[in-house]
This record gives sequence, structure tokens and C-alpha cells, in this order.
Amino acid sequence: MAKNGFKVMDSDMHIIEPADLWERYIDAEFKGRVVGLTRYERDLGVALDGENLSSSMVPTPRSIEGHAREREAQNPKYQDGDENGWDAHSQVRAMDQEGIDVAILYPSRALFTLAYNGMDPKLAAAIGRAYNDWLYDFCKPYPDRLFGAGHIAPHDVDAAVAETRRCVEELGFKTVFMRPNIVNGISWHDPYYDPLWAACERLGIPVGFHEGGRPPHIAQVGDREFSTSMLHHTCSHSMGMMLATVSFCGGGILERFPHLRVAFLEGNCSWVPWLMWRMDEHRSGRASNIPS
Amino acid sequence: MAKNGFKVMDSDMHIIEPADLWERYIDAEFKGRVVGLTRYERDLGVALDGENLSSSMVPTPRSIEGHAREREAQNPKYQDGDENGWDAHSQVRAMDQEGIDVAILYPSRALFTLAYNGMDPKLAAAIGRAYNDWLYDFCKPYPDRLFGAGHIAPHDVDAAVAETRRCVEELGFKTVFMRPNIVNGISWHDPYYDPLWAACERLGIPVGFHEGGRPPHIAQVGDREFSTSMLHHTCSHSMGMMLATVSFCGGGILERFPHLRVAFLEGNCSWVPWLMWRMDEHRSGRASNIPS
Repeated sequence: MAKNGFKVMDSDMHIIEPADLWERYIDAEFKGRVVGLTRYERDLGVALDGENLSSSMVPTPRSIEGHAREREAQNPKYQDGDENGWDAHSQVRAMDQEGIDVAILYPSRALFTLAYNGMDPKLAAAIGRAYNDWLYDFCKPYPDRLFGAGHIAPHDVDAAVAETRRCVEELGFKTVFMRPNIVNGISWHDPYYDPLWAACERLGIPVGFHEGGRPPHIAQVGDREFSTSMLHHTCSHSMGMMLATVSFCGGGILERFPHLRVAFLEGNCSWVPWLMWRMDEHRSGRASNIPS
Repeated sequence: MAKNGFKVMDSDMHIIEPADLWERYIDAEFKGRVVGLTRYERDLGVALDGENLSSSMVPTPRSIEGHAREREAQNPKYQDGDENGWDAHSQVRAMDQEGIDVAILYPSRALFTLAYNGMDPKLAAAIGRAYNDWLYDFCKPYPDRLFGAGHIAPHDVDAAVAETRRCVEELGFKTVFMRPNIVNGISWHDPYYDPLWAACERLGIPVGFHEGGRPPHIAQVGDREFSTSMLHHTCSHSMGMMLATVSFCGGGILERFPHLRVAFLEGNCSWVPWLMWRMDEHRSGRASNIPS
């Protein structure tokens, strides 16, 4: 907990959403389409219209055994969460045990729901809103300790701006986030997304990027090369952040929105000095063979 | 030149192949299909059956102007090469000016010729052989200063093994190389390529990876996100090497062939300590959320 007057903050804490989150929170129009999976204990999967969005990899005996070993290793630490449906009280008790005062909360299942090229933008926006409404209720009992990160659907920029404003102005969230994977072929530095960066800058919140598992309808770094979780995750979660960083720096977003703050999460950071140097070198034309 | 008894070596020097290389050197069966382009001074392009393989990017007024500025900046240094068709004598005179004793030679145009999913493996092998035969003739006048790196077509592993052997045993090359982009969806750590790594290990030569410009029929890191050379090259040449490094280490190639040496070229290296740490962490399962 607080040390020398400084609070301990986890900037990337995860919660485990209930399987029936979307059944309870989504707009009536889309009711029943998004369902959390409960194939085994602590399943973090989710399905849309019956299609499993939580992995495009074929499970192997080894990966199933790995999952079981992982769940076994989580006992008995996870007992409190298990017994209390991973509610806010069990979350805060876990934070007390770990010595964490304050946390920004990111999802588990929901990470799979919006990484989807060609998804109906209205459905995508509704999936994000449902999660954000649930997260608002989750954080409510602990307004000084739990802070939600709004999950934003990038499929339609106007809807993304509207939901970002709602997250900050109505739900009191301090940040919003997306996965780093570009959707529908539109790069982050494409002017299409400028209204979203303008909104984050105006609202004074950082926008975050958080990668997730391998969904069937989006491209990630390494998905052409690697079939195992170990190798794929090594590349997707780190190099996905590098590509987003290149978009924000080299692509000019931070030049156009100099007060915008960005968080690149769960992808390490010791590559940052190298990548900053490389972008400078390429910008200056000092690298050979690069037509400017 | 040599300092304190040590020779100065350039491990990644490029030569500029003549536009008519393949017309002169390729097997009669494929004559006329691969043609170096001469659209402007110092054009490094190449076409297959009339299709430009040397860029899938649409030239813009800015990129054309950039090319022209680049060529202008190369004068008068390039005068000797220009006037002598970039022959071995002008290459060695340039090395003398730069203080380089010994160089391993990589191509310019040829980099575009084999990065091609679905290419007829016999054509691919013939394109590589033609380049290697030309390179052998190029190096011949300076056996103590110019060393060719054999260009290997990965489309058929048996042909790749045969050409690797020929490069080393008949042409005297000290290394062979490919681009890091996987071809036909087969990862480098797939057992399919084991005979090639076995051959390199047995022959005692390092195998190199060298990325190149953006060809129309292969995937590179960043090609979904970036349309300008500056941003694309920032990612393709570095993260392409990271993916190959993950294949060789995490994918188990170096475990199966412990005496194999690999060179990852022209992609920087200050990211290596980070990536080694990350692979260790993922292998040990210490990273959260990674089913082993």
C-alpha cells in the first residue's frame, strides 16, 4: 500500500467479467448475440452468434493440459474470486493482499469482442457500451480505488468519439482503450481517426492500447508465422505496440495533437529507445536505401 | 584498411547488378522472363513476365522527387561506378576509398526476385542460380577481397539445399541468404526447412537473412499499416528480423542444429537483449496470460 506518501497504482489490472455481462447489459436490439463461454472453470472465452471469438488456434492436448496446469497453479489464490463471482469486493481484497492502492481496470473476455474486421459498427459500439456500463457498476463501490478504462469500438469514428465522451463525462472513467490491431485496413494515423484523438486531447485523458488473444477476424503481428501461444504472444503483444508507436510518432498523430497522451500496455518497453532512434534515423533520411 | 593487423570487413555490402543479368545468365528455359528495369538512372527495379516486382507502392510526386534527390546526392561519388557499369574494379576502388579490406556481397535488384508466394519453384531456383553464377564471375578478379553471399530460393527445400551446396562447394561462397519473409505460409522453424539448416551446419557456413523492398506477392511486417517507404521500412527491416529470430530461437531451430550460425542483417540489433529476455520469459511461463 501507500509508501512515503505515494500511492501504489497498477496501470494495467485485469478484471474477470461475468459470462452473462452482455446478456444483461447490451441494448435490446442485440440481446443474445454475445455470450460469455463457460466450457471450463475460469473460461475467459466469448462467442458472437455462436462463433467462438476467443481463439482462432486449434486446441492441442498440450495447450489443454497447459490451461489446466495454469488453473491449478492459480489455486488457492483465486478461491476468493471464484467464490464471489470475481466481484469488486474480491478484487479489492486481492489488491490489499498485493499492496496496491489504486488500479486502472482492463477486461479479459471483452478483449476478444471488438477485434473484428467488417463487424457491423452499430453492433460493435453496443458491445463496447455494454461492457462500459457493466464496468461502471463494478467500480461504483470503490470510487477511490477502482478506475475503469473504457473499451472503445474503432469501427465508426463518430461512435467512438461519442462513447469516449460518455465514458469520461457520464461514467467518470479516466482513460479509454482499444486493441492495437487496425480494423478494416484503416491505420491509426489515417486522418479518419483524428476526431477521436482530438476528443481524447480535449477531454484530457490518455488513450491506451492493449493487445489481446488471437481472434479469428483480425490480423496480428506473427499470425502468419506462429501457431503456438508462446511464440505468437511473444510477437503480437510487443510488436503490435511497436507498430502503433510508429503510427503515433512517425505517422504524425502526436504532431497533430501535441497534448495527446498515449499508453502502450502489456508489451514491454525496453525496445522504446531503439525504436525512437530508428524513427529519427528514418525521418532524417540517414538510413541508406530509404527514399524519403 | 587493415588496422593493427586486423582487416576491416563489411559484412553487408551491396553491389548493383546489371539490368541484363538474368538475360545473360538464366537457364535457356526461362530466358526473357526476368528483366532488370532501366526507367531512370540507377534504377534497381526488376520485372517478371512484365510485372514490376520492385515495388507494390504507387509512386507519388513526393517519392519520385525523393528518388531524384537521392540520386543527385550520390553524385559525384557514384561517377566511377556509373562509368564502369558497377563492375568489380569500381567496387574495389570504392572499398579502397572507404577503407574496407574485405566485403560480403548482397544484391540490389535480386532482392525483389524471390520474395514471391506461389512462384514456380523451378523458376525461383533458376533465378537464384543465375544471380549466383553472375556473382561468382563478379568476385573472380578479387578472390581475397570480394566474397559472394549466395541467394537461395526457399520455394523448394531440396532445390535450396542443392544450390547451397553448389554455392559453397563449386562457387566458393562463404554464406548464403534469404529474405526473412516466409514463403507459401511455411515458417522457418517448420521441419520442412530442417534439411536446409542441416546443410548449412554441415557445410560450416552461416545462413543470413536480408530484408528488401516491398514486393507485390509477399507479406512483410507493417504492410497492413504503412504506405510510405519511411514508415514501412522502419518496421519491415527490423521487425522482420525479430520474427525470424523468434523462429530460430523460440521455434527450436538452434536447439535442433546447435552448430548452425545465423546472420540477421540490416535490421539493427539493440532490440536483441530485450527479445532474448522476452523469449526466456515466455518459455518459462512467467509472463501472465500465456498458456504454455
